[in-house]
Amino acid sequence: MPRPSASIERVFHALGDPTRRAIVERLSRGPVSVSKLHAPLNITLAAVVQHLQVLEGSGLVRTTKVGRVRTCHMEPKGFSAVERWINDRRTLWEKRLDHLGDLLAEEDDEA
Amino acid sequence: MPRPSASIERVFHALGDPTRRAIVERLSRGPVSVSKLHAPLNITLAAVVQHLQVLEGSGLVRTTKVGRVRTCHMEPKGFSAVERWINDRRTLWEKRLDHLGDLLAEEDDEA
Repeated sequence: MPRPSASIERVFHALGDPTRRAIVERLSRGPVSVSKLHAPLNITLAAVVQHLQVLEGSGLVRTTKVGRVRTCHMEPKGFSAVERWINDRRTLWEKRLDHLGDLLAEEDDEA
Repeated sequence: MPRPSASIERVFHALGDPTRRAIVERLSRGPVSVSKLHAPLNITLAAVVQHLQVLEGSGLVRTTKVGRVRTCHMEPKGFSAVERWINDRRTLWEKRLDHLGDLLAEEDDEA
């Protein structure tokens, strides 16, 4: 099992690149072969394969090979660690606001 | 207004770095001065300032200066573009699964 922080690191890094986001956007509409994925992208097939390796390493994409055809699938659970991290930040921030609100209300009561 | 894709790019890039994530984690618990933010981090003050500039550029952090003290605040709405992007991918992916389910149910009816 990779450490959660390592996984967050990889997902943020993977999605920081516009080509890799375009690949995930395409795969969210359904699985597709590497060659079909390559066709609309203005880069070499070798570059597509490299991007796919980064995406597989981050857990956002899975590829399967049947005969000579490699098919790419999106893995929605790959987003979980990042979603959790963002939610945790938001929750802490909102709790603090609630706490400030309570303190202000107490001051009003005492005034 | 920056393009949404440029903003997503900046947020993913900003959060791809463990020190910048540590800064956001600290700020989600409340605003703090640059020098207090610096104290527990094992890097130079200049490096902290550079990380803060990246975070400000991404819209995740805001800093304000009163007298000689610069205070850093988390900006939760800075996460919105990235959350929306992830939700859109998930929604498309789930719609496709629903559609596949419908197709399979139709095949069962016809069998």
